[in-house]
Amino acid sequence: MKRRDVLTAAGALALTGCASEVSECQSSAGGDKQFNWKMVTSWPPNLPGLGTGATKLAENIEAASGGRIRIKVYAAGELVPAFEVFGAVSEGTVEMGHSAAYYWRGKSEATQFFTAIPFGMNVMEMNAWLYYGGGLELYRELYEPFNLMPFPAGNTGIQMGGWFNREINTLADLKGLKMRIPGLGGEVLRRAGGTPVALPGAEIFTALQTGSIDAAEWNGPYNDLTFGLHKAARYYYYPGWHEPGPVLECIINREAWAGLPADLQTIVAIACSALNDQMTAEYAARNALNLRQIKQEGKVEIRPFPDDVLSELHRITGEVYDELAANDQTVAIILESFSTFKETIGEWTAISQQAYLNTRNL
Amino acid sequence: MKRRDVLTAAGALALTGCASEVSECQSSAGGDKQFNWKMVTSWPPNLPGLGTGATKLAENIEAASGGRIRIKVYAAGELVPAFEVFGAVSEGTVEMGHSAAYYWRGKSEATQFFTAIPFGMNVMEMNAWLYYGGGLELYRELYEPFNLMPFPAGNTGIQMGGWFNREINTLADLKGLKMRIPGLGGEVLRRAGGTPVALPGAEIFTALQTGSIDAAEWNGPYNDLTFGLHKAARYYYYPGWHEPGPVLECIINREAWAGLPADLQTIVAIACSALNDQMTAEYAARNALNLRQIKQEGKVEIRPFPDDVLSELHRITGEVYDELAANDQTVAIILESFSTFKETIGEWTAISQQAYLNTRNL
Repeated sequence: MKRRDVLTAAGALALTGCASEVSECQSSAGGDKQFNWKMVTSWPPNLPGLGTGATKLAENIEAASGGRIRIKVYAAGELVPAFEVFGAVSEGTVEMGHSAAYYWRGKSEATQFFTAIPFGMNVMEMNAWLYYGGGLELYRELYEPFNLMPFPAGNTGIQMGGWFNREINTLADLKGLKMRIPGLGGEVLRRAGGTPVALPGAEIFTALQTGSIDAAEWNGPYNDLTFGLHKAARYYYYPGWHEPGPVLECIINREAWAGLPADLQTIVAIACSALNDQMTAEYAARNALNLRQIKQEGKVEIRPFPDDVLSELHRITGEVYDELAANDQTVAIILESFSTFKETIGEWTAISQQAYLNTRNL
Repeated sequence: MKRRDVLTAAGALALTGCASEVSECQSSAGGDKQFNWKMVTSWPPNLPGLGTGATKLAENIEAASGGRIRIKVYAAGELVPAFEVFGAVSEGTVEMGHSAAYYWRGKSEATQFFTAIPFGMNVMEMNAWLYYGGGLELYRELYEPFNLMPFPAGNTGIQMGGWFNREINTLADLKGLKMRIPGLGGEVLRRAGGTPVALPGAEIFTALQTGSIDAAEWNGPYNDLTFGLHKAARYYYYPGWHEPGPVLECIINREAWAGLPADLQTIVAIACSALNDQMTAEYAARNALNLRQIKQEGKVEIRPFPDDVLSELHRITGEVYDELAANDQTVAIILESFSTFKETIGEWTAISQQAYLNTRNL
């Protein structure tokens, strides 16, 4: 906090110093106006990957702008709770937020398509849809009535299926399964006979250990080990069918965005895209290291879900989508774009990424 | 050319205007010094993806810097030939280049590991190694004696195996196969009994059509259709075992780099990372669309290489690596880092990306 306070104070001085002589001070970079912004996030303080990524985004914007934008980053709860990031930026309490669109399904079920949906697109496919398939336009249109400008800004890559203290050998094993799994994944589990439970990340370990839940998904090896989940479960199932490539978002209040000169807008935009690039790489590298650690400790069995279980979860997912689309025109439009793009790019993925991975170790 | 000339002239004026009153002009953004740079590339003019990506990189840097860096982009042959980009930036003839490291194997065989090597890592794994696995440090160390600062700046994603007018059903079908395939992939083919041929992209179509070669790899559906290759071959084979996720590079002359103030260095760095993010998405989206077109035209058969052919090419690849490492200490060090990382991350990829793709369509 201290270093940030110093930075903010210096920023305020620079603003004062320059405002009085703005004509002499005008630089080729579009003016010396000083912006002191706040970024609220949905992440615990310094959470590796998500929290540190948000901080890195702020640092890159500050550095690239030569300090013309200074951004004070707040962990969840420091200024607003984790799930009030959207509202705080929308109302202009703060200029900026770092979070995930699917947390805002209370505002619109359609938000979920911009993070991850069960059996949806993977990281590369999501980015292709967002940047080159019309996804980002739909995302921005959806957020405009909320006075928000969204940018993809990070990705955890596909997650794991979760930590289990009960074996999943057949569909019947899902009946009565009490599992911490939020959102659409939870709804799919419910229809398969399970009981989805809502729990904050920090409470998962105890709930698993005491047996008050049978299973829990959080993220993947990188973030799961932070909570010690590998010490509270017997099985670690894959793949993470419910979140195949979750996109993180940077959201900016539209007035704050419009108030930035063009050069600073470009800096913010490319800094978000750079975080998208870097965070995906970070999760891949760190997930791999932590997976090794789990294997070396040898206390958890790493297992695939049976094919027929995945197949049934997939079938149910289709039902859920159809119902959402039938009840909500916005969902219907976005689902149509998403599904059409997924089908087209899926054919390419099959003969490129997938075919390569399946033959690489022949 | 005309628009660029105007931009450059305006840039020169700004520099003159500011140099005389630099103390008053000093902005919080680190000074108003004007940089007029040249970027040479290895790409034909406006080649979709690679050429347009290099232009986008220059535009983003200009826009983010408020015009403090202006970059004139040159297609291959406009200022220097495609394969003299490295030398021109190294010697300081120009400040910047956009190309691919494996073109410089004449300088060091080790350069190839920073683009793509046969049966190597895919896009996500390459980025993980470069940014979080020590790869970028090795890359920079390798380029330092050449007075160059490299950045990953784009990726085509895994390529296709190539266009064939001869069926590949068994290993015997590789004997005597005349194929346009450069670099390590070509060397592997040679050892498998084929005849690798070197040809510039623009000459592939005619060579295929006249039968002077039996097969050719270029890139993937996005770029291959530019040359009309789908009209000169009967089979389009996958996967692109020889280039599983080729990284493009932005190289900067070290004196030019050191001459940039810190804010402009950050702008260049995040613009390169943003291009890495965006180009990967662009290739995925456009490859998918063009693959659809090839299928709809129905004149080419899209086929997988037989498993035993891939397995033998993989075995030979191992031999090639071992020989390269035995003859070159730098290759040995980089191969060790690459292979160790690939093994670790490969375990994660298998239960994440690969497992998901294999079960998504159950």
